[in-house]
This record gives sequence, C-alpha cells and structure tokens, in this order.
Amino acid sequence: MAKKLIGAAVFGQSGGPTSVINASAYGVFKTALEAEEITNVYGMAHGIVGMLNDELYDIGQEDSYELSLLLNTPSSALGSCRYKICEEDLKRIHEMCEKYNIRYFFYNGGNDSMDTCNKVNDYFNKVGYECRVMGVPKTIDNDLMGTDHCPGFGSAAKYVATSIAEVHQDAYVYDTPGVTIVEVMGRNAGWLTGAAALASYSGSPPDLIYLPEIPFEMDRFIKDVGAVLNEKNKCLVAISEGAQYADGTFVSQATTSATDGFGHAQLGGTAARLAAVIGKEYGVKVRGIELSLLQRCAAHIASQTDIDEAFLAGKSAVEHAVEGGSGKMAGFTRETVDGKYSCGITFLPLDICANTEKKIPREWITEDGTFVTQEFIDYVLPLIQGDNNRAQENSLPRFAKLKKIKAK
Amino acid sequence: MAKKLIGAAVFGQSGGPTSVINASAYGVFKTALEAEEITNVYGMAHGIVGMLNDELYDIGQEDSYELSLLLNTPSSALGSCRYKICEEDLKRIHEMCEKYNIRYFFYNGGNDSMDTCNKVNDYFNKVGYECRVMGVPKTIDNDLMGTDHCPGFGSAAKYVATSIAEVHQDAYVYDTPGVTIVEVMGRNAGWLTGAAALASYSGSPPDLIYLPEIPFEMDRFIKDVGAVLNEKNKCLVAISEGAQYADGTFVSQATTSATDGFGHAQLGGTAARLAAVIGKEYGVKVRGIELSLLQRCAAHIASQTDIDEAFLAGKSAVEHAVEGGSGKMAGFTRETVDGKYSCGITFLPLDICANTEKKIPREWITEDGTFVTQEFIDYVLPLIQGDNNRAQENSLPRFAKLKKIKAK
Repeated sequence: MAKKLIGAAVFGQSGGPTSVINASAYGVFKTALEAEEITNVYGMAHGIVGMLNDELYDIGQEDSYELSLLLNTPSSALGSCRYKICEEDLKRIHEMCEKYNIRYFFYNGGNDSMDTCNKVNDYFNKVGYECRVMGVPKTIDNDLMGTDHCPGFGSAAKYVATSIAEVHQDAYVYDTPGVTIVEVMGRNAGWLTGAAALASYSGSPPDLIYLPEIPFEMDRFIKDVGAVLNEKNKCLVAISEGAQYADGTFVSQATTSATDGFGHAQLGGTAARLAAVIGKEYGVKVRGIELSLLQRCAAHIASQTDIDEAFLAGKSAVEHAVEGGSGKMAGFTRETVDGKYSCGITFLPLDICANTEKKIPREWITEDGTFVTQEFIDYVLPLIQGDNNRAQENSLPRFAKLKKIKAK
Repeated sequence: MAKKLIGAAVFGQSGGPTSVINASAYGVFKTALEAEEITNVYGMAHGIVGMLNDELYDIGQEDSYELSLLLNTPSSALGSCRYKICEEDLKRIHEMCEKYNIRYFFYNGGNDSMDTCNKVNDYFNKVGYECRVMGVPKTIDNDLMGTDHCPGFGSAAKYVATSIAEVHQDAYVYDTPGVTIVEVMGRNAGWLTGAAALASYSGSPPDLIYLPEIPFEMDRFIKDVGAVLNEKNKCLVAISEGAQYADGTFVSQATTSATDGFGHAQLGGTAARLAAVIGKEYGVKVRGIELSLLQRCAAHIASQTDIDEAFLAGKSAVEHAVEGGSGKMAGFTRETVDGKYSCGITFLPLDICANTEKKIPREWITEDGTFVTQEFIDYVLPLIQGDNNRAQENSLPRFAKLKKIKAK
C-alpha cells in the first residue's frame, strides 16, 4: 500500500473532442471530489495551456447536477488545446503544481496528450516533486497502443455506421446511376472508417471501404467503383480522410498545406476530390460527403457503452492514483462474462501509449483490401451498444452549464 | 356524399427523400388496405417512371410488420424519380390505370410532384376517366404554399438544430480563433437554415444565419464574421446552400453547372467557398461543413411529431378520396388545443401547391438579415418535438424490408 498522499487534483482535456470526453471528465471529477485524500479539484482551461497561464477552474464550486450533465455533453467542457510542451513549460507546470499543492495530475487525450503526460511525469520524477500523474485515453481514431479500444471510438463508430445505413437508403433511391463517397475521419488508422461496415446490420453497408492501412491506387479505385456501378447501378464508398498512396502521400493533397500544432497535415476534401475523378470517368452523378465534425460531437447518438466506459476510465485513473499509481494510462481490456462482452481496466505505462499508433491488423481487412472482415465487425459491435439516455429540453440537447469559477 | 368508387389504388414517391416520406407511404398503404372500396394497393417503382414502365409493386402481399417499419425507414422505400411528364406520358398513365383498374391515384412529393399530380388530375377530367387524384406533401424545404408546414421539415429542422448545437460545442473548444460555416439545404427558401436558431435552446446557437430570402453581399458577410470573431474569438455561421446575390446568382457558382431533371441548379459547396474567403481575409482556421444528405435521411433523430403528421397526411388523403375528394393536396393547419400546438388537416387545390414556393416572411427575419426572430423559432419548435421511437437491432436501425412483388 502506497503512502497516503494529500493534496489537490487537476484535470485537463487535450486534442480533438469526442462525444464522451466529458464523461471521462465527470468520472475524474466525481471520484476526485469524493476522495478523502484530494483536497481540491481543478480543471485546466484549454488543457495544458491553462496550466501554463494559471487559468484553472475550481470544480468543487460547480453544481452537482450540471456536472452530471457532462455525461452527455459532447466536446471538451473545459476547452482543449493542441500544444506541444517544451522543457521551459515543464518548469512552469511544476511551479503551478506547487502553487496549488497539486499532487494528482490527470490528462485526457490521444497519442500526443499521452506524450505530454509522460513528459510531465518524467519531469516530476527528475526533480523529485511528489505528484501522481495519470493519463486518461480519448480518441475517435481508436489508435492508442496497449488498450483494447479507446473512449470516444464507440460513439463515433455508431454515428458512422448509422449515417452510412441512412445515406445508403437515400443514395439508392433513384433509378439513375449514382455514386456516393463518404469521407470518415482517421489519419493513419482506419478503425472509424471500417466501422461503416456495421451498417450491414441495417442491410445497408457500403459497397467499398478504403482504409489508410492499404495503399491507395487510383486506377484500382476507379475500376472497383466501375465494377459495382455496373452490377448495381449505384455505388456507396466509405473512405478514410487519411487514404494514402504507397509512398505515404495523402489522396487529398490539395488540403495538406494547413497543419496543426504538431505538424500533422489537416486533412479533408478526399471525398470531393474522388467524386470529381469518378464523375469525369463515368459521367454519372457523384456526391461526396464529409462527415466532418459531426462524427466526433454527435452526442445525441453516442453509445451508452462508450459513455459508461469513458466515465470508468476517468474514475479508475483517480482511484489508481489515490492508491499510489502513477505514470500510467487507464486502458481497457476485453473480457467475456457469461458469454457476453465486458470491459476491464488495465494500467499501461504512459510511454507505450505515447506517439505510437495502433492500426487495423491486416487479417481484419479482406484480401482485396476494400472491406473489413467479420472479425473486425465483431470487435466493434459491442462498443456501439445502447442509446444515450440524454437530458433534453424542448426535444433539444440539454448540455452542462459550468460556472467556471477561477481557482485562487 | 359522393358515389362509392370501387377499384385499385396506386401510390408513388417523387423528388428528394426525407426522413418521413415512408411514414406517409405507410399512412396511405394502411388506410387503403383497410378501405372496403379499394380492391388492390399498388406502389410505383421510382414514382411516375414506374407507372410509365409498368413497374408496380403489389403492396397487399407485403408483411404487415415490415410495412409498419416504414414509419422509421428514411428515404423512399419504393424508389423515387425526378421526371417531368409530357402529354404522351399522361396517355400512358391513363392506359396503366385502365389496365389495373386504378381509381385512386396518390402522389407524394414537393412542388414539382404536385404539378405532376395536377396534370394527371386534369388529364383524367379531360378524358373522363373516373379516378380520384390526391397529393401528399413532402419536402424538407417547407416551401409548399397553402399548408402551414410540410411533412419532412420537422425532422430535418431537428437534425439541423441538434447538429448546430453539437457543432457549437466542438467549434468553441480551442482557445485559438476559428470560424465554422455550416451549409444547410434549401434552394430558394430558408426555413431549414433558419431552424439552426433553435440550437439556442441548447445554449449553442449559430452567431449568424444567411438565408436565400435576403440578398447576399460578400463584403457585408466578411464584415459580419469579422465583428463576431473580434468579440468572441470564434464565429459559427449557418448558411443556406441557396444563398444568392441580389441578381439571383448563387454564392456557390462553381457548382451550378450540373442541373437536375427540372433544370434546377444542383447546389452545394457554398460553405467551402466562403471558408476559403474568410480564411484568406482573416488568416484564421476556418472549417466548412456541408450537412449534405444526412439532414434529409437521419431518421434516427426524426421528430415523432413529424412522423405522426406524415402518417396523418397519407391517411387523410386516402380517406378524403374514398369520400369523393379529388384534385387536392392534404395540407396542414395549425390549431391550438388547450393552449398547445395541434395539427389539423385541410385539403388544398393542387394547382395552388404546384410550382409556387413559400418563403420566410420578411418580418420573421431580423432587421439586419442575419438571424431569425422569436416568432420564427416559435413556429418551428412544436414541429421537432418527440424522439423517434424506432426499431433497432444491435443498436443499429432496423429498416423495413419490402418484398416488392411485381403487380400482375
């Protein structure tokens, strides 16, 4: 049993939002507020940037009902950031922790955020500052190493599968030939795009799926679409925004000039570009659809399983830290209980999770590379189960309204 | 009391799909199958085109549970068309009606479809063929004259308002300046774009709304966005795909070359175009989002009120025809019962509904033309109420599976 550590806790949200990132926040807040060892609970305004700028919110002053609404409020209630920390920043973070007597540091995000978290932990160890540092995973991309899956993925996957099922109904409606190309988020891993295949449960799967894992070939793509068009007079394609040629260049090169703070290309426009190619080749009506932000913020169709698990990740991170854990990310394991899917918790070293991406195994992609296997579908299906029993007013979402009182 | 008319009924779906067009189909089918006077119930494959090609489905042979699932199956289960009929076609339609002894003709669609319906009715009157012709309205655009509102609008409005509320949560998440431009369907009327304002009930309204009713001025737009950016560091814009300059040219001219069967421009790309303009002007991150097909097929978030009313429109059309009515469209009136919104039925001459478009009254748009008034919001709000209590399997939509047995 580790020594009892008394002090404040801080929590920050980083990177792109998901539908359930605030459910993890609620898991952290609720557990930390109830923990004897934790004297105060703070939230970083815009992630680590708020830490650097001394902008922390005092979560203890929030209304408990409003906090509970975080369970179905999409995006990052505290604000997010995309900021790569430097050595100087680590000193500043240390100063801030001393100022507020922060002994528990929780950070929620994807690969880059786990890297930030890892650096903070290493720095505290180096300078001998006693603070337990825990990462809470979050990414619709589902590409974090070590964890069976990531909070945020299940809800985004449900949105993608449902939208594909509905678009299929629409796309097949006219008797004239037509091609619909739906672009799904995912830079280097195709988990979310592959989830389009789950629309097969509605009898409305895409005809073709293109993932970043399989090198894209334009000629092959044109032929694939032509073959489906020939057979069905229609073709519905799901393609990852990160679809890339064998040499690693993205299909959507026109938009790769803008980059985010980490030097990653800002993608998008793949569907529009390919729609133009197919339209020119076959002279048929082609529609390119970018699911855009909706896939990561459509809380109205979030998976309840995902919400529950996101909460669990936040809660487990706090419990583990209170018990003495540090330098870990709260990850998921897949268990089978009474023949049914169940989610377990595991604590993974932060450096395993930082800056490495988990891709779809090749054997979960069909041999011709244009669809996923039943194994892939079986992997995703449990993660999208259950409707978000969300608060509404006037049949519109009732989001959490935080007071955001600045900590002193 | 009109003479009892014994014979078959036919129903067709035309134009762009909505989330609830099949709910009207179910209203027609269920009522017609139960009506003593109606001997057979047929569905046109791809609207009037199926009528011309002798492709009718025998609805009486469908499973009743599958038919009931039409209530939450988006798009057009029988297939749709965009086809302008000529004199020759009217003769063919007459022949087909004689062949199947069709005495009840129901057609579901928007302005153009009501025009088709009106021509069929006039032709039957001219040649003295006894057949009762009724139009059933349908359009997410809500632009049909004479009816208080249109089936399909409420569900699309709910999708738009919910999506804007969610995107707002996402768009405001970073501490860096950013502009998000969301493009909503609507060629000449801004009803659906205006519905974005209902996100104010979630505390997440757009900052600016641009409607086709107000001439678009690029300089003014750039200034408007700049002013909001200056104040909030963010700006969320909802704009109609049909936004147009004072001379009637669309903002998105690049995409106006493709036209549909009626000579209307196929719109889209307005958000992307304006995103480029704003990005260049202010050097901030701008994201253009096209809601695209999702807004007309996202049955998972359909308004139950809209579903019920769409069913009612179909049911009422059949009942009216059986009672002797013809040459009418089943429209809606707005009633107040016990201080609450209630929907009544009215029967409007088809020629009033055909080829004229109802726009938002000027007094429901704010003086500066960049938002809608509370009156507009009060008009839309009752139409989006109630969640679609839809059938699901594996937490994915369970759509109707029709056998589509060809009529003989």
